[in-house]
Amino acid sequence: MREKSNMDELITLDYGSGGKKTARLIEQMILPAMKDPVLNELTDGAVLPGAEAIVFSTDSFVVDPLFFPGGDIGKLAVCGTVNDIAMCGGEAKYLSCALIIEEGLETAALQRVIASLSAAAKAAGVRVVTGDTKVVEKGRGDGLYINTAGIGFLKHPGLSPKAIQPGDAVILSGTAGDHGTAVMLARSGMMEGSLQSDCAALGKLCEAVFASGAAVRVLRDPTRGGVATTLNEFVEGTSLGIRLREEAIPVRGEVSAACEMLGLDPLYCANEGKLLCVVPMADAEKTLSAMRAVKEGSNAALIGTVTEDAPGRVVMETRYGGARVLQKLAGAQLPRIC
Amino acid sequence: MREKSNMDELITLDYGSGGKKTARLIEQMILPAMKDPVLNELTDGAVLPGAEAIVFSTDSFVVDPLFFPGGDIGKLAVCGTVNDIAMCGGEAKYLSCALIIEEGLETAALQRVIASLSAAAKAAGVRVVTGDTKVVEKGRGDGLYINTAGIGFLKHPGLSPKAIQPGDAVILSGTAGDHGTAVMLARSGMMEGSLQSDCAALGKLCEAVFASGAAVRVLRDPTRGGVATTLNEFVEGTSLGIRLREEAIPVRGEVSAACEMLGLDPLYCANEGKLLCVVPMADAEKTLSAMRAVKEGSNAALIGTVTEDAPGRVVMETRYGGARVLQKLAGAQLPRIC
Repeated sequence: MREKSNMDELITLDYGSGGKKTARLIEQMILPAMKDPVLNELTDGAVLPGAEAIVFSTDSFVVDPLFFPGGDIGKLAVCGTVNDIAMCGGEAKYLSCALIIEEGLETAALQRVIASLSAAAKAAGVRVVTGDTKVVEKGRGDGLYINTAGIGFLKHPGLSPKAIQPGDAVILSGTAGDHGTAVMLARSGMMEGSLQSDCAALGKLCEAVFASGAAVRVLRDPTRGGVATTLNEFVEGTSLGIRLREEAIPVRGEVSAACEMLGLDPLYCANEGKLLCVVPMADAEKTLSAMRAVKEGSNAALIGTVTEDAPGRVVMETRYGGARVLQKLAGAQLPRIC
Repeated sequence: MREKSNMDELITLDYGSGGKKTARLIEQMILPAMKDPVLNELTDGAVLPGAEAIVFSTDSFVVDPLFFPGGDIGKLAVCGTVNDIAMCGGEAKYLSCALIIEEGLETAALQRVIASLSAAAKAAGVRVVTGDTKVVEKGRGDGLYINTAGIGFLKHPGLSPKAIQPGDAVILSGTAGDHGTAVMLARSGMMEGSLQSDCAALGKLCEAVFASGAAVRVLRDPTRGGVATTLNEFVEGTSLGIRLREEAIPVRGEVSAACEMLGLDPLYCANEGKLLCVVPMADAEKTLSAMRAVKEGSNAALIGTVTEDAPGRVVMETRYGGARVLQKLAGAQLPRIC
């Protein structure tokens, strides 16, 4: 038997944060039991061998509340899985959709979610081809949880953090922290103002980047755990580091203000319509131009570079000339954000 | 806008029963919104076009309790999706696994479930290649919900209730109602006795049937809603009916006794390791022999025939010489049975 090491005795919300404890649960409990090299890759989706290489991904959505400015759980359930496939270099084609409904959910709310999910699928060019419906007793769920799994076909093989080189450019496709902040504001009842979730499918944005001819090293959407956590995943355990410039990272004024009020950091807030991409510095300009020509990439920015002088670390030069180490999200900053 | 017709204003447990109300929710709310011919087929999985035809299926598992005689939610989550693919004529190859954990779940319980899930996957010859982990607050879940989606490749195309012909044989691969009864007994705290869930992967059993050379019309696993509901799905809206002989339907003595005590009918109780299969009467004997040579089919029986004299109906000749119409399960006889 392997030791249980540093898992807690009971599962806490922190294990769902997308940060360190989620990683611990997966690495210490799930991977050793499954022993599958494809699963061990821990990318957003799995690339499967076959006549046409299939990209396979899944996510459950437990966002609270079900409806928030800029989206709802239905739209999120489509975009989240479509994006996971896109981040693997795949083109999403088919989705499954499984509902866990809490007894007492208003039928009209369910209808709105399904309409939104259907519209999002149409917009993203994916078909919902199979599904499942379960109902649990009142108090055993929270309105509605949705799982989607997606099948896509691999168009751009070889994307991996392992492909990252010293001197590479780190690009963020738009403003950081919109989704997490919008949901937290909605949850707290402070919903006035113009702040919206960025929830969007990123297939077109990815295609634009590939069409630019940039030699893309890796793509990933910074959802739970935010930009800071995803960048850490790129370099942890390697001889490379990432140096960010705080002033280069686009953050909406409303997001900064809301984060300050809520005690959050936009770099750790979930995004649902953004991607991080590493390309050779020589390809940075064409990547940015390609992104900015697409609605979802209109605020794309070069936010940092890959260095050899901070192995395994993400270091941010602050606005005030200092340096701050950005670690992975430790606990559950924002539970049930997606 | 289409009319909401006869949906209730709030979702009740009945909508998760796998019977009439589940069908209503799917047919009146989901299919019209999605408008996809593949989804409209309402089989256990979707058959997708491509270089190799892919079979894609999903199920969420919300069984209460997590552990029951003969299995647990982890084993169930593998067998359920593997079987859905097998029922479509596919061979399951890859699974996704998404966990929704309730805060406070014992880590040791999670570890047991994951070990069981992994062992079941190995036994069924499928690989878990991608996953997701969410944690919800105490009181917003019930220990653990698991979604699996599966990818398989189509080996035996053309299985469909539409292929059923008058005079065909209706075969059940073993005893009816074991899973539902075992779970209900476990839930009620009456766990002594030898009654076990039949939870099992049916890939080998299906292969044996096809290898026999029988011209299989349709396969389906009678899970939620049981044998009676699945048989209704075969013939509803058609010009054919099914005539069953009650005395031919294998039911364990313990299951009969437990059902009587709990006020249940074994023909409406979920099975998780059984299949119903329709073949030409001329192929019935070889189908039965092939099934009985496999552990999962050792109690296979010819339980009825396809007739033209009760269109759209399932009629059972009772032990006492009467006839009883078996309708689809109407409500939630057994909530959260899988």
